[in-house]
Amino acid sequence: MQSAESQLQILRRGVEEIIVEEEFVARLESGKPLKIKAGFDPTAPDLHLGHTVLLNKLKQFQDLGHEVIFLIGDFTGLIGDPTGKSATRPPLSKEQVLKNAETYKEQVFKILDPAKTTVRFNSEWMDKVSAADMIRLAGQYTVARMLERDDFSKRFKSEQSIAIHEFLYPLVQGYDSVALEADVELGGTDQKFNLLMGRTLQKQYGQKPQAIMMMPILEGLDGVQKMSKSLGNFIGINDVPGEMYTKILSMPDELIWRYFELLSFKSMEEIDELKKTVMAGENPQEIKKIFAREVIKRFHGEDAALNAHNSAGNRIELGEIPEEVPEVFLDDCHDMPVAAVLRMADLVKNSAAAKDLLARGVVYVDGVVVSADFKFNSGDSKVVQAGKKKIARVVVR
Amino acid sequence: MQSAESQLQILRRGVEEIIVEEEFVARLESGKPLKIKAGFDPTAPDLHLGHTVLLNKLKQFQDLGHEVIFLIGDFTGLIGDPTGKSATRPPLSKEQVLKNAETYKEQVFKILDPAKTTVRFNSEWMDKVSAADMIRLAGQYTVARMLERDDFSKRFKSEQSIAIHEFLYPLVQGYDSVALEADVELGGTDQKFNLLMGRTLQKQYGQKPQAIMMMPILEGLDGVQKMSKSLGNFIGINDVPGEMYTKILSMPDELIWRYFELLSFKSMEEIDELKKTVMAGENPQEIKKIFAREVIKRFHGEDAALNAHNSAGNRIELGEIPEEVPEVFLDDCHDMPVAAVLRMADLVKNSAAAKDLLARGVVYVDGVVVSADFKFNSGDSKVVQAGKKKIARVVVR
Repeated sequence: MQSAESQLQILRRGVEEIIVEEEFVARLESGKPLKIKAGFDPTAPDLHLGHTVLLNKLKQFQDLGHEVIFLIGDFTGLIGDPTGKSATRPPLSKEQVLKNAETYKEQVFKILDPAKTTVRFNSEWMDKVSAADMIRLAGQYTVARMLERDDFSKRFKSEQSIAIHEFLYPLVQGYDSVALEADVELGGTDQKFNLLMGRTLQKQYGQKPQAIMMMPILEGLDGVQKMSKSLGNFIGINDVPGEMYTKILSMPDELIWRYFELLSFKSMEEIDELKKTVMAGENPQEIKKIFAREVIKRFHGEDAALNAHNSAGNRIELGEIPEEVPEVFLDDCHDMPVAAVLRMADLVKNSAAAKDLLARGVVYVDGVVVSADFKFNSGDSKVVQAGKKKIARVVVR
Repeated sequence: MQSAESQLQILRRGVEEIIVEEEFVARLESGKPLKIKAGFDPTAPDLHLGHTVLLNKLKQFQDLGHEVIFLIGDFTGLIGDPTGKSATRPPLSKEQVLKNAETYKEQVFKILDPAKTTVRFNSEWMDKVSAADMIRLAGQYTVARMLERDDFSKRFKSEQSIAIHEFLYPLVQGYDSVALEADVELGGTDQKFNLLMGRTLQKQYGQKPQAIMMMPILEGLDGVQKMSKSLGNFIGINDVPGEMYTKILSMPDELIWRYFELLSFKSMEEIDELKKTVMAGENPQEIKKIFAREVIKRFHGEDAALNAHNSAGNRIELGEIPEEVPEVFLDDCHDMPVAAVLRMADLVKNSAAAKDLLARGVVYVDGVVVSADFKFNSGDSKVVQAGKKKIARVVVR
């Protein structure tokens, strides 16, 4: 095992906060393989690069010889929402949990080494916990401190109801650290409250409190908001190679360095070298291509990465009308805004995407950029291009 | 079984509130024996007349043919205080719980009919409840509503800590009504929140919600504060007959009618007759003697009641100094207030009792009533009488 110091140099990369750093270092100095806990929802995962920030950190721990515990918090998933208010949170069955776990593995083992990863379910121990034990657990924390958690605090102040069982879930999550005797827990900065709960409970159960390592929340392709499926600014790890490639090449130039730091397996020294080439005049698009190849290789293999790279140059250029264009027929309409046409012609997924493309000036009608106030009327027959990827001849009857 | 109407007439006596009266009447009208739940702490009981207000009401239900469930809430007692803050609430053992239950029976079966009383322990069902079930139960209630409970609300506002498990105890108590399928729950007015919890949870578990009958809190012998051991204004059901007799005769005249209503088994008509005799000039002390005989008979039998009555006339009169008086020696003192002397001479249990006797004007020194500012000094040798029962010659050296 490497020295604590050299491990720390690797592990500190991209980290937002370590609690408590001295304790963390002391654990590394023990020279023993540490138990690294990371908790995941039991719902069907569909991971994007944002999630892999944490997975990459786990991989580092793993590569350094530590034991990564990929913990699926299925116990609460099996309960569902006892208030019955949330139709979107029906209780999961054991079968679903196991199926979701398989989906997880399929995705995370593209990064983690299956041989060095322990997959656990917290139902293993929580199913054996009695009501009396649960009450004892609840005795370890106060109402006032629980209400300090950001989301609870906001809901309480705005008089939105909080069901009492919601106070028990963070305790269960913290108790997982006790059950696992975790040395370190990893999580996003948005998980700070829950991560600290593990420390609190471990202390109360007579264990040495785990160190906590918090990773930043990755910005999406817009470089502003966090990467999220619902915001549409994401790169899914199951995205096809061409899509990954295009998305990466479309991001703001500055953002690529953030992605390199948090997502690339290249060393910081190599990344610094790349930065120097850009400062010396290299086109940032070339740097993005390097990053794209690395990421596509990770999730789709070397060949796919090469293919995406080579075929990218063959994609249609913006405003250039190819010979073969699919036709889309729309019904009789009058002064229909181009955004609506983009949606009805299935050239964009939703209005937000249409708005975004229009704002970025990459919507072409008959080879000419149009703005959001461009309208369609009955009798029109025009080639509409939404960015580089989607094109159709729109015929309004 | 009597008609609902005639049952209601008997059962309404002394009751503070019924929730919901129409539902309660409907249950009586069903003509079926109802399950009447009353919950008790699992700690060693030492009952006083205040507790018997509820027991007497249970007896009425029992006499009318209903099933009384004497529920001992041992489940929480077995847990104790998980915060470890309260040294006075160590977890009880099963043996202690059973022993305490025996003590309960010994006392309550002086009022209730053992053959018609079902003694239950909530550990019977709570021991089988899992953490998952407990979480589901906690999902039935909100934090905000729990914080409406008087004591929680006060503690929360004054920033005294509330441990989260304290939110679970009322839920457990409410769930007992679900487990028992209670038709009616009895409790003091101070238990309203918990009693209503039973209704809430029964509804959520698809049961018809129990009716609630709340009894007033009995005033102690001072006629002002609630009867309580710590206030010293109580009549214990294990008090010896003479003590009961003296205490009852010492209470304010008006209070006896309240005691008759809530504690006597005489009908309201009989009590009204007694009132008429007082209005016609009868000495209220004679009425108290009637009450004293009834109560002493209940807890000590007919003979004891007669003895107490007959020997009461032989007790020393206030201010009259008997021939034989025990001597108490106090060390050198200067301007020692009489209250302190009463305590040091063991004539009262505590300062509150001393203050009370002084305020009531029943402390005599050498046969003369004294007030709180009477002082003792070295060299004094005086006969001190604290009420009718305690007398001593205090010699200050």
